[in-house]
Amino acid sequence: MIMQNPNNNPAKTGAVVTLTDADLDQYLKNIDVLSIMEKTFAAFAKGQVVQPSQTLTLFPEDRGDFITYQGALSHFNVFGAKLSPYIPTAGAPIITAWTMLMSMETGLPLLLCDSGRLTRERTAATTALAVKKLAPAESKILTIIGTGAIGKAHLMHTLKLRDWQEIRLYSLDLVRDTEKQQAFKAIDSRIVVCDSAKAAVHLSDVVMLCTSSGKPVIDVNDIGKQALITSISTNVAQAHEIDPKALNSMHVYCDYKATTPASAGEMVLAARDHGWSAGKIVGDLTDLCSPSPIKPAYDKSIFFRSIGLGIEDIAIAYAIYSQF
Amino acid sequence: MIMQNPNNNPAKTGAVVTLTDADLDQYLKNIDVLSIMEKTFAAFAKGQVVQPSQTLTLFPEDRGDFITYQGALSHFNVFGAKLSPYIPTAGAPIITAWTMLMSMETGLPLLLCDSGRLTRERTAATTALAVKKLAPAESKILTIIGTGAIGKAHLMHTLKLRDWQEIRLYSLDLVRDTEKQQAFKAIDSRIVVCDSAKAAVHLSDVVMLCTSSGKPVIDVNDIGKQALITSISTNVAQAHEIDPKALNSMHVYCDYKATTPASAGEMVLAARDHGWSAGKIVGDLTDLCSPSPIKPAYDKSIFFRSIGLGIEDIAIAYAIYSQF
Repeated sequence: MIMQNPNNNPAKTGAVVTLTDADLDQYLKNIDVLSIMEKTFAAFAKGQVVQPSQTLTLFPEDRGDFITYQGALSHFNVFGAKLSPYIPTAGAPIITAWTMLMSMETGLPLLLCDSGRLTRERTAATTALAVKKLAPAESKILTIIGTGAIGKAHLMHTLKLRDWQEIRLYSLDLVRDTEKQQAFKAIDSRIVVCDSAKAAVHLSDVVMLCTSSGKPVIDVNDIGKQALITSISTNVAQAHEIDPKALNSMHVYCDYKATTPASAGEMVLAARDHGWSAGKIVGDLTDLCSPSPIKPAYDKSIFFRSIGLGIEDIAIAYAIYSQF
Repeated sequence: MIMQNPNNNPAKTGAVVTLTDADLDQYLKNIDVLSIMEKTFAAFAKGQVVQPSQTLTLFPEDRGDFITYQGALSHFNVFGAKLSPYIPTAGAPIITAWTMLMSMETGLPLLLCDSGRLTRERTAATTALAVKKLAPAESKILTIIGTGAIGKAHLMHTLKLRDWQEIRLYSLDLVRDTEKQQAFKAIDSRIVVCDSAKAAVHLSDVVMLCTSSGKPVIDVNDIGKQALITSISTNVAQAHEIDPKALNSMHVYCDYKATTPASAGEMVLAARDHGWSAGKIVGDLTDLCSPSPIKPAYDKSIFFRSIGLGIEDIAIAYAIYSQF
């Protein structure tokens, strides 16, 4: 059995580093997750990354399922898998995520790490990377719909990306919780809390949807100008945070062209019901991070959708491991 | 970081048990691997097991690949993944295998374990399970072709399955190595070393092929009687230890009907070139371990082919973990 002693350097002793959520604070604070994501997609553009499709395995006897996110990163000499089970219980379901990081040089495991918080961080940083690449330089108003942990992570990763004049937050929960409102306002003086999604998005330059909703949380027409709208995944079947039909009136981007269109709910529904097709996707994060990146056109609104990729999980796990 | 102390019970402290190859001796010796495999396939027959397809992911820049074996076992309340990389080097390639075992109840990891030796043991025990279920009760002569670690594991798991009168071993290596011959003979007095594969299989009741050969290692006609022939996987493309054409003259079984025919070299080639089809497979280990098992017919020879399954890796990892 491997004895783990924080006084030993596990990288030197050959031991496997095992980190729980409580251990992560001290390592996560040293990491620029957005920069790691940008490097990872730039490496992808150079052929140094392989991203297999995620796999969903049902548990026997209707006991839930688990999703496996895999990736191989030649530039960091690592590969691995994140396993994320969904376990129904009498109360709230149990959802966890753990990553096994392995060396592409020795074939040995390097890190076993609780990846709940890492998943949140890489998801928000991936959206932030899209904002960095796609939002007009002169963007002034940022709106965040959904103010849970994932919404807050989005806020933190996008705070400095543009010279925001106003940062608007909206969620049903936040409207009712003055204590939480004060906590958000303490982060940045430009933050305002809105009474409705409609008011929050009006004339906004960038709208980040950070909910676990299975149906639209905003009407894109309520924005009233060209904007960048970002949207993330949740585990509701065919989940979509905007009306699928709206894809036809926007420039559509995603995290990975090869897998996102078959998984993102609004893309699946837009293709089925509204004459949209995956071929209309302008580009993905690899295209945006390549040496000759796609330049966004600003003649209509832009929609960016991520489903989350194994290479992001492996990259952030490596960034944690590399501190040992 | 989790501190691991052999004086604590990791199952009680919530720590993840991490085991290297050197740690395994003391735990492996307590396990009846054949019995665990039989229970696992019996559970599969009852719908308590889910076996997704294995996935192969190429490393970037032609640096090798890794195979992921996954499984979920409701009867043991565990699921997980074994990652097995193949890393070419200037010398011999590096091949490792590590399993992450997780709880289906808590969603937390339980064990991270070197699975090189466990893979060998579960492979041999799976063949032994087929011998137990398929070899005629009165079988007298056992032949093993290939006498490396995997061949020796096959020997150990089948020694007591029938009242063998003679156990014949053959490999090119063994013929030349008198010291190794003596070591084998010391295991059991019924063991004889043969000069050729042809002599070794002649009038044998059970022939276990335990090589990493990509092409036939015996001519099934050299057996000269009805026999049970077993064959395992190796990582050579379209590897086959017998002539693919021979499938047409035998009753064919495998470890898992849903995945083996598309992966086993002689099945792929027999289907492509010799008019054989996967529909001709009589049954798999789940059929043989079900409450109403298929009874083998002895009107012609029987061929059993395994490719190795994730559920076997998860089951043996659980058997190790359950000792903590």
